[in-house]
Amino acid sequence: MGRKKLTWQSIGVTFCRNSCVCRETYKMLKLNGLQKISVIGMGLLGASVTMACLRAFPKVFTVGYSHRASTRHKSRQLNVANQIAETLEEAVCDADIVILATPILTFETYFDQIAPFLKPGAIVTDVGSTKALVHQWADKTLPRDVYYVGSHPIAGSEKRGVEYARDDLLASARCILTHTAKTNTHAIRILRQFWSELGCNVVTLDPKKHDRIFGLISHLPHVLAAALINSSDFEDMKFAGKGFIDTSRIASGPADVWMDIVLTNHHNIVNGLDRVIRQLNMMKKAISAQNADKVNP
Amino acid sequence: MGRKKLTWQSIGVTFCRNSCVCRETYKMLKLNGLQKISVIGMGLLGASVTMACLRAFPKVFTVGYSHRASTRHKSRQLNVANQIAETLEEAVCDADIVILATPILTFETYFDQIAPFLKPGAIVTDVGSTKALVHQWADKTLPRDVYYVGSHPIAGSEKRGVEYARDDLLASARCILTHTAKTNTHAIRILRQFWSELGCNVVTLDPKKHDRIFGLISHLPHVLAAALINSSDFEDMKFAGKGFIDTSRIASGPADVWMDIVLTNHHNIVNGLDRVIRQLNMMKKAISAQNADKVNP
Repeated sequence: MGRKKLTWQSIGVTFCRNSCVCRETYKMLKLNGLQKISVIGMGLLGASVTMACLRAFPKVFTVGYSHRASTRHKSRQLNVANQIAETLEEAVCDADIVILATPILTFETYFDQIAPFLKPGAIVTDVGSTKALVHQWADKTLPRDVYYVGSHPIAGSEKRGVEYARDDLLASARCILTHTAKTNTHAIRILRQFWSELGCNVVTLDPKKHDRIFGLISHLPHVLAAALINSSDFEDMKFAGKGFIDTSRIASGPADVWMDIVLTNHHNIVNGLDRVIRQLNMMKKAISAQNADKVNP
Repeated sequence: MGRKKLTWQSIGVTFCRNSCVCRETYKMLKLNGLQKISVIGMGLLGASVTMACLRAFPKVFTVGYSHRASTRHKSRQLNVANQIAETLEEAVCDADIVILATPILTFETYFDQIAPFLKPGAIVTDVGSTKALVHQWADKTLPRDVYYVGSHPIAGSEKRGVEYARDDLLASARCILTHTAKTNTHAIRILRQFWSELGCNVVTLDPKKHDRIFGLISHLPHVLAAALINSSDFEDMKFAGKGFIDTSRIASGPADVWMDIVLTNHHNIVNGLDRVIRQLNMMKKAISAQNADKVNP
């Protein structure tokens, strides 16, 4: 890495599990003692997080990683982090906070791959839009002396890629932290401070409740937008006004990201679809019958 | 009315059917001979049309009318037209172009009420979002020497009321003119010029085709947005992001306006609902089965 190994501010020893100098007791991280933040995945959101970190924590070493060489190259050119690591080991070694910003279905594998390199006490989080399954994967896969907390910053765009990243993408965004009874409360506190410093308005939720709510108010509208587009004739769309465009805009989000969301929250989305289909059938009946009272209850 | 009777520019006689000076042959209206434009309904769109007319046709007398005294009062205070008429007769007498900007289900009655006061050769139009039924009403109710052409300017907002009217609401808006084989081609030409002068990008369609297309790309999204809102829990909505807000924004449009749209285009909307419900059931099945290929075809 060509860079002095980073240490806990108060102990002065390296805890990287890989080079494994020692496994002594360590003091808990404080945000002002933060030395290295790693973000895995240099898409729009991941790179916006590294950029926001560069601005909010100028003294903290910010590392980005992408499994694609071309993305690493672009990320370096765009200076979105202090370092763009060539390997996962290099990316997460000594990191105080590791953030996964890749599609959700890759998280379990990434947890597994980074586990050997994480230092004890490291906080691992992610920016995925579904949470219950991710908590299960983290519990199963991450070392017991590493703390997982779920993060869901409500920021993004239908655009994608490091080239659209902005250091203010998270400004005023809501960020949901998810935790279970098992989650380390200190890690929650640190992450709350961390996202707040990046400009987010942080709230906490149980991961199951998170997935139920977001299944209905975020994932379901996406599925509806896709159904609307699929039901429309291409040649009619030139007459589309702002209503149609706004309603269907979210359907143009990255398909793989949304696929993972849908697959990892299928139960809640199916529940929402049941509700909506029931509503639509009621409305269809009322509209067919030209029943004004029921069309507009 | 305290105002000199307006006449066709080229004949100099009054054709108002009410005071009925004569029923002689008249020359066809040219846009630069336009003397009086009347708009019935001083809502957001109606008042924006009068304001746009004041700007585009400063020499033309622009009259607004509302059946509500309070709206007439507000419209006068806001100076949205040269005159706010107290009665329908006063509003449409001698008008070259009469534009209905009230909810669609009132059109048949308005056609009936204004018929005695329209001068021969007057062009009657409207700004409604459905057209096939309105053409039928016009054919049945308006005098044979009055020309009906449908207009559908794609402009508006979820806001309503004369207080939100703007003289640039129509700028760059698409405006669909609808006509059947029976429609007077000169009247179509005049209205095409008229809306173009107000800044619209004018296209023409058969009213049935218009209703089919707009049923799918405008009215259906509205019904979907309403179904989505009705399927959501109020307490979850505080977590709503831009996707949900954009998708559901149109559901906050004026209920009576939308009720009329739905009721006068029920056949096409029901067709669209059938398509969407079919799509949603397919997606539900694929999501339940976690079938990635079918979720993202």
